[in-house]
Amino acid sequence: MHSPKYFQELIDEEIAALSFQSKPAELYEPIRYMMSLGGKRIRPSLVLMSNELFGADPQKIIKVALGVEVFHNFTLMHDDIMDRAPLRRNKSTVHTKWDANTAILSGDTMFVKSCQLMMSIDSGFSAEVLSLFFKTAIEVCEGQQLDMNFESREDVSIQEYIEMISLKTAVLLGCSLQLGAILADAEPEDARRMYAFGKNLGIAFQLHDDILDLYGDAEKFGKQVGGDVLSNKKTILLLLALSHKNKNKVDELKEWINKPVANPEKKISAVREIFEHLGIRKQAEEEMEKYFQIALNDFQNVKVEDARKETLMNLAESLMIRES
Amino acid sequence: MHSPKYFQELIDEEIAALSFQSKPAELYEPIRYMMSLGGKRIRPSLVLMSNELFGADPQKIIKVALGVEVFHNFTLMHDDIMDRAPLRRNKSTVHTKWDANTAILSGDTMFVKSCQLMMSIDSGFSAEVLSLFFKTAIEVCEGQQLDMNFESREDVSIQEYIEMISLKTAVLLGCSLQLGAILADAEPEDARRMYAFGKNLGIAFQLHDDILDLYGDAEKFGKQVGGDVLSNKKTILLLLALSHKNKNKVDELKEWINKPVANPEKKISAVREIFEHLGIRKQAEEEMEKYFQIALNDFQNVKVEDARKETLMNLAESLMIRES
Repeated sequence: MHSPKYFQELIDEEIAALSFQSKPAELYEPIRYMMSLGGKRIRPSLVLMSNELFGADPQKIIKVALGVEVFHNFTLMHDDIMDRAPLRRNKSTVHTKWDANTAILSGDTMFVKSCQLMMSIDSGFSAEVLSLFFKTAIEVCEGQQLDMNFESREDVSIQEYIEMISLKTAVLLGCSLQLGAILADAEPEDARRMYAFGKNLGIAFQLHDDILDLYGDAEKFGKQVGGDVLSNKKTILLLLALSHKNKNKVDELKEWINKPVANPEKKISAVREIFEHLGIRKQAEEEMEKYFQIALNDFQNVKVEDARKETLMNLAESLMIRES
Repeated sequence: MHSPKYFQELIDEEIAALSFQSKPAELYEPIRYMMSLGGKRIRPSLVLMSNELFGADPQKIIKVALGVEVFHNFTLMHDDIMDRAPLRRNKSTVHTKWDANTAILSGDTMFVKSCQLMMSIDSGFSAEVLSLFFKTAIEVCEGQQLDMNFESREDVSIQEYIEMISLKTAVLLGCSLQLGAILADAEPEDARRMYAFGKNLGIAFQLHDDILDLYGDAEKFGKQVGGDVLSNKKTILLLLALSHKNKNKVDELKEWINKPVANPEKKISAVREIFEHLGIRKQAEEEMEKYFQIALNDFQNVKVEDARKETLMNLAESLMIRES
């Protein structure tokens, strides 16, 4: 079984080979730029590792893995416009480096390219592959819409939040693992278990990300600590705190949310103190752990010998390692 | 053979039945709105008419026709953001009625929906159908990029312009006709002829649209006469005029282009006079007629008896009827 690092490098090479050298350059240069920003290439690695898990040769389905990665980067390009994000992986976002029109149209083109990659392998599974891919793509759009809706809502429940991150983030991890399984001709039940494994892992992964915002090592995390606190982003931490029965502390928290940020450090430390008082970090970690355990349980039920599962298990665990 | 009106009504009914009632409503309501703005439904009608031309039952492939229409409306929704267009069919555009983020994300969702529709019929042709559809979708994006590039270029040749409108507008008409033919199991050569027929018809159609901007009946055309002139849009009329050998008149035209519009009516009549002097309308009509004749020639070569071709021929001709 190959390591995540092996697959990451393989995918980086294949992305470089795609090159997007077509014309007009104004359309393809932003795509090349976006795809070259790097990252851990988790989703395409999941496609390939799941495929290898069931005894197939992942080299044969690398285009499908690339399709997932191009699709993921398309969603990031459009999300960055919608979120007015200036930076991605410490580089300018496409709509900042060029403009919003460029990011819209290059993003659209990336989505079409991802479809082409997705159907470019010769297999009897293409209808199944495309159905799963399109269903997931719709869900990712719905998740992004829910995320935007939440910005102006004051009554988001934990359940609604889990549903949102499930759609926006987690289903694509599930889809990736299921695609690899389908293309290895795995038992349909095992393919569905791989989907559940990825989806629950994705939820745990996003909850972890929420926790890291406030409790992560700034250097390792690569983002400003407390950024979500400053922007009042409805993360698992904030939602758990707002639904706490300690009315005094909740009111205190709402005050910080509603007043303009005069002193960022002061707001972060005040909110951190409220969270501390309410035991929010522990609750959030328990929630994360819950989904991680569901994910592992799904994975354990997959009918493949344990030794073959080791590298995927290591990858799953590495996603949950606390950077704090 | 059924009439264009029959197909238009059938498509309107099917679009109403699609309904887009899913949640979140913030994502689907703009899609429902956009799809209900109406129009002649030319592209899906071409899919169905081409299918019937080759003796198949178009009812069986209505989902593919809808896929083309949803895709077309997706491109319009995103183009309207890029062009900052306030109105479409005399109604507010989606990014005006809601906002740009809504138009981006609802548009993305429409594109995925069009893919789902495109593969939702049970046929042995789905790989061929999707390949053609994705190739065309990429070309439409490239055409839109070229169109935007042209805004800041002073040296656009007639050939480049034809290439741009071919990608942005015409290939989707070709694709529609070829899809109908493929799904009727037409000879590959005939399917390719249908594509060429549609593509050349599309070029003629766009040139006709350019001509109507200045020479159309305002009421029938439904747009402000001379709108392209006021915005210095590089239409076939302007490009033919700018490439004319009469240097004095070209300089005069450039002056009108470069100075701010103090009096819109005055600018339109001055430019109209220059075009008159240079015989631009006639040249543009000859160019349009050239592509229309190529289109008809492609259609005539399709190996189907003439009687069956009548309704499609009538539709093609109706697209070229001068509204002036």
